[in-house]
Amino acid sequence: MTHFPAAEILSVGSELLTGETVDTNAAFLAGELTRLGFEVTGVRQLPDDLATLRDAFAEARSRSPLVVATGGLGPTHDDVSREALAEALGEQLTRDPALEAALRERFRAYGNMPEANLKQAMRIPSAQPIPNPIGSAPGWWVDLDGRVTVLLPGVPSEMRRMWSEEVAARLTARFGVQPPHVRVVKTFGVGESALAERLGSLLTEPPHGVRVGIYARDDGVNVRYTTRTDAAAADRLAAAACELLESDAYGTDGADLADIALHALARRGARRLATVESGTAGALAALLSDAPQESGLMLLGGLVLPAGTDASTAPAAPAADATLCVDLDAPDGHGRSRVHVWLDGRPSVQARWVRVHGSGPQRLRRAAYAALDIVRRELR
Amino acid sequence: MTHFPAAEILSVGSELLTGETVDTNAAFLAGELTRLGFEVTGVRQLPDDLATLRDAFAEARSRSPLVVATGGLGPTHDDVSREALAEALGEQLTRDPALEAALRERFRAYGNMPEANLKQAMRIPSAQPIPNPIGSAPGWWVDLDGRVTVLLPGVPSEMRRMWSEEVAARLTARFGVQPPHVRVVKTFGVGESALAERLGSLLTEPPHGVRVGIYARDDGVNVRYTTRTDAAAADRLAAAACELLESDAYGTDGADLADIALHALARRGARRLATVESGTAGALAALLSDAPQESGLMLLGGLVLPAGTDASTAPAAPAADATLCVDLDAPDGHGRSRVHVWLDGRPSVQARWVRVHGSGPQRLRRAAYAALDIVRRELR
Repeated sequence: MTHFPAAEILSVGSELLTGETVDTNAAFLAGELTRLGFEVTGVRQLPDDLATLRDAFAEARSRSPLVVATGGLGPTHDDVSREALAEALGEQLTRDPALEAALRERFRAYGNMPEANLKQAMRIPSAQPIPNPIGSAPGWWVDLDGRVTVLLPGVPSEMRRMWSEEVAARLTARFGVQPPHVRVVKTFGVGESALAERLGSLLTEPPHGVRVGIYARDDGVNVRYTTRTDAAAADRLAAAACELLESDAYGTDGADLADIALHALARRGARRLATVESGTAGALAALLSDAPQESGLMLLGGLVLPAGTDASTAPAAPAADATLCVDLDAPDGHGRSRVHVWLDGRPSVQARWVRVHGSGPQRLRRAAYAALDIVRRELR
Repeated sequence: MTHFPAAEILSVGSELLTGETVDTNAAFLAGELTRLGFEVTGVRQLPDDLATLRDAFAEARSRSPLVVATGGLGPTHDDVSREALAEALGEQLTRDPALEAALRERFRAYGNMPEANLKQAMRIPSAQPIPNPIGSAPGWWVDLDGRVTVLLPGVPSEMRRMWSEEVAARLTARFGVQPPHVRVVKTFGVGESALAERLGSLLTEPPHGVRVGIYARDDGVNVRYTTRTDAAAADRLAAAACELLESDAYGTDGADLADIALHALARRGARRLATVESGTAGALAALLSDAPQESGLMLLGGLVLPAGTDASTAPAAPAADATLCVDLDAPDGHGRSRVHVWLDGRPSVQARWVRVHGSGPQRLRRAAYAALDIVRRELR
């Protein structure tokens, strides 16, 4: 089996350790690194503390050829990721005149640069700057002793842009990685244990060289086959799982439940769709806003009603052919909620009750996906 | 300064390392542990791998008196958190007849229990079971050699319920922790660097025993003072920061921007509020659904229009006194987006343009908060 280089992710920021912010950066980077062909072997969230970070950089570099860190590159006194990596490598920080000039130029439009930002122009000799087109913190690319350490800012929009414009391509070239062959079977309406039971050996006995995982997401339970060596085996497993699960599997790989439901509506003659929802805080409207716009169906938008309002009393959008309606009840004592779903107009679907599990925003998103799943099943 | 016992969080699940799921459990637990009076010194996301987990449990237990782990307690073959902790402690797993009986009872309603679930009845001698009222995986409470390790399931709704019904109180009693004194100053409309510059020594030179942090959230930049020893100093700092920042600070501690805007509307005579938004995927409706319902204002719900639709052409809800309207433009090349905000009816606010930074769902939520901030500022 070909080697996947190990990668570790360090997310820096005391706010991650007090629960003030959720670390979406780590999930983004983990997904990207996996897709490129690395194996992410660990993620850590660490405080803005010089000694802790220095040790964490040294440990991660000793274990893994690639370390990607985000956060701690800001201008304030508690941003110490540069200092920590410098100490871990035994190098001195000095001010880079080119970085300083770029920073001063950037601030010209807003007036004078705060002196605090000068620390963002500091670097060690081994660090190559990574440009940040939308923020003041440049990143660092450090390739030393056969190991690469990348520092990126913690602001998600800056980090993501620098990743896609610069870092991803450099990593692919530097490590010669190749994306693994991944097949995902996407299901809705069946719990994780029940699905595992039905899949049997398709889950527990993959052939040599194929790894299998199962996990619950808001859009259903996914079964994932990953391989470097036997693409045909992964394809066979995915096809066998789909056949076994029949209509409980809605697709593979990039299949999108919203997109599938919209195509089903379009196929049955709908041209303009509206939504009415209560108790979901607009989760259905949010999902449809993100859905691919490839079905030809025009989305007119939707009405979001407070919890407890009966969606059937709301006026339908006059221009809509079909209106998808969702009422989500409050959860019972066992963490289950009833969802009432129907489709008015042409085509139409009679009201159905289904249950969703979970709490918080997950509960709302699952209710919205449950509505789309009913459309998919009923209008096939 | 009183001691805050150190706590580490381990989130178990290979799906966290492939980016398939975002680790919201760690953020929840970090917030809860901090609130109880622990100091969270690190969080790790780890794969479903026996040797990796065994080492991680041993390391974390050697450093910290409390380790809280979530995930890896399911019935499938790759759930190995129990086995890993057993190995780290050198104890044997045996089936607990009481746990087995409870599991079989739980499954009676659904038919026979899948045999795979029997592993959820296994425990080591040191583990006390923690009941799971809404799932099949009991937790473990292991108090050994003066150190506590807690295992909880990874399903967020199960984990949160077990935390609040059982674990939080046991931890408080076991460690005798006391909540720290925390004061948070909440601001909107000023960036992190500019805010740091304005705050000066209120940020960089807190008195002995007071820790200060600054971080950007969707509802603005927060400044947080934490102390165990000098509550009066933290109160003074928070008051001084509020005075210095004038109307850019909208409140302290639990202050909620949506709640403040709703109260401002109610004070100006509005009784029924509707919303119309385009380009935000319903972010404003979602925020208002979560807002405290204490203003007396009735929320009629809102209309969510596709991006590019002009919200001013939408019909107002007939029963509304006031309709808050938000149009969010597409982002420019620098990661900034323009938001157009106005309030129709009584009271009314003339249209304003503001800018928000960021991408993805963050961009949408920030646009919604920007609309509420305009209401707050204009109707004071």
